[in-house]
Amino acid sequence: MLIPTYEDVERAHERISAHVHETPVLTSRTFNDLTGAELFFKCENFQKAGVFKARGASNAVFSLSDAQAARGVATHSSGNHGLSLAYAAGRRGIPCHVVMPRTAPEAKKEAVRGYGGTITECEPSTSSREEVFARVVEETGAEFVHPYNDPRVIAGQGTCSKELLAQTGGLDAVIAPIGGGGMVSGTCLTLSSIAPDVEIFAAEPKQADDAWRSLRAGHIIADDAPVTVADGLKVPLKDLTWHFVKNHVSDILLAEEQEIIDAMYLIWQRMKIVVEPSSAVTLATILKNRETFAGKRVGVILTGGNVDLKKLPWM
Amino acid sequence: MLIPTYEDVERAHERISAHVHETPVLTSRTFNDLTGAELFFKCENFQKAGVFKARGASNAVFSLSDAQAARGVATHSSGNHGLSLAYAAGRRGIPCHVVMPRTAPEAKKEAVRGYGGTITECEPSTSSREEVFARVVEETGAEFVHPYNDPRVIAGQGTCSKELLAQTGGLDAVIAPIGGGGMVSGTCLTLSSIAPDVEIFAAEPKQADDAWRSLRAGHIIADDAPVTVADGLKVPLKDLTWHFVKNHVSDILLAEEQEIIDAMYLIWQRMKIVVEPSSAVTLATILKNRETFAGKRVGVILTGGNVDLKKLPWM
Repeated sequence: MLIPTYEDVERAHERISAHVHETPVLTSRTFNDLTGAELFFKCENFQKAGVFKARGASNAVFSLSDAQAARGVATHSSGNHGLSLAYAAGRRGIPCHVVMPRTAPEAKKEAVRGYGGTITECEPSTSSREEVFARVVEETGAEFVHPYNDPRVIAGQGTCSKELLAQTGGLDAVIAPIGGGGMVSGTCLTLSSIAPDVEIFAAEPKQADDAWRSLRAGHIIADDAPVTVADGLKVPLKDLTWHFVKNHVSDILLAEEQEIIDAMYLIWQRMKIVVEPSSAVTLATILKNRETFAGKRVGVILTGGNVDLKKLPWM
Repeated sequence: MLIPTYEDVERAHERISAHVHETPVLTSRTFNDLTGAELFFKCENFQKAGVFKARGASNAVFSLSDAQAARGVATHSSGNHGLSLAYAAGRRGIPCHVVMPRTAPEAKKEAVRGYGGTITECEPSTSSREEVFARVVEETGAEFVHPYNDPRVIAGQGTCSKELLAQTGGLDAVIAPIGGGGMVSGTCLTLSSIAPDVEIFAAEPKQADDAWRSLRAGHIIADDAPVTVADGLKVPLKDLTWHFVKNHVSDILLAEEQEIIDAMYLIWQRMKIVVEPSSAVTLATILKNRETFAGKRVGVILTGGNVDLKKLPWM
């Protein structure tokens, strides 16, 4: 297990700065009044490809040697990582192979193709996905970039809270949603190195609470097929992300489905920004854990804004 | 007719700066590629009360003498101006009377009350509105603040393009949507004074093209009851706003309803921000008048973000 260091985050930041946005930090009087805290929203919904994952994917793609790069990159993801890797590969002008179930929404396939990615379809089962993915890598020699259990990816995500700290001039706590733990791990890596007094919280849907249960059990617990509106947060921790979560996360806070939807609606309505359900889990948990955050300066990572505008969860 | 000067804009800016946001300017690679222009989106959807009208309303409220202010302000508006005036009056701690038809959506009434405004209901007819409004002013002595045909309001709106120019370091053109012409007049006032080479365009729904026809006829033409998804743009020009439009607007460009909805959807999807239909008329006209804007640095005023998230026009 190769654990990235803060030096890797600094190198990642230099490497990717021409390819990703330094996203803005927004504040909201309404939400400060509602929570009693001073909230600083880091808007990764404005990031390239609409999601923070453009950071990690860009770091992975641009750290490849020319020989590696020529063979391209590959991943299996029907969501934001596939999109982000296609974006980053497009910026470097190299092939990107994304294995996706043939049942994935056409809009998601279109988006990957829009960035120049090549889709190879598999059946919607783990065995088919693994078989097809192995064949693609075998045939192309492409470099596998895991959505989160990859030191290059985690170092890339770590650039987000590096910016956030500089933009806010200091915080008491940071909270990010947790699925596989890539963003949370990057946050832990950066903050434990340059601002070790900042408390780190993770926010998770109650209906996909495997990280919450892992933290309490002291080992990784993986759910089989959790169902939640926060569809970016269904995947389990892996060894690298578990390392960071276990060592640096103060607590994982849970939110019910309706609380997530209500928080998402509130963010759209009051902040006038489009965020995906996964991004709203943080505010949902802050609203129900007032005593934990009141009186503090809290960084809130809004992870992404890729949502089907024709199918909103409050409709 | 009291025509405001650029000095009034400067005084307005000092007066209101503690009460309104200097809203951010966003750019989008996608939209630059689509239009061939370099677009700078001035995000008044992030403004207090969710709309640029907080500027003009704040300038009117904070320019009242203490004696005037004690009697409060009044207007008739079921939309953004009523909300903005209630916001500004709340900031000064003075009464705000808003006459609204009893048939107006409950959400709009709630929003005005949320800022501390007092609603007096009238029947949904012009005669009832005028009668009830006259009675409210008679009984309270409140100062009438017109939504746009008021020099204080126009000077307040002029602060928007003053900021935009400073934030972008210079532009070739600015485009704003036109209804009653308050924002366009403020834009004309500021740009004609400090950047007279910047071309000024207005964007209007084809189904509410009274300003377009006025400009061609050389006098104000008012429509009776235009129907458009851009519900902030249904009102006619008045003498003050006509003065600015007639003297400073290069052209008024028209967009069909579906083009407005498509542009609104594109803004939400690609920029990840919530804007109301009126705000999208500008991009709709830029997309269909490519030759007018290609190669230019264009300021695009996104006027507001107050939209019913449960009733989106593409649903």
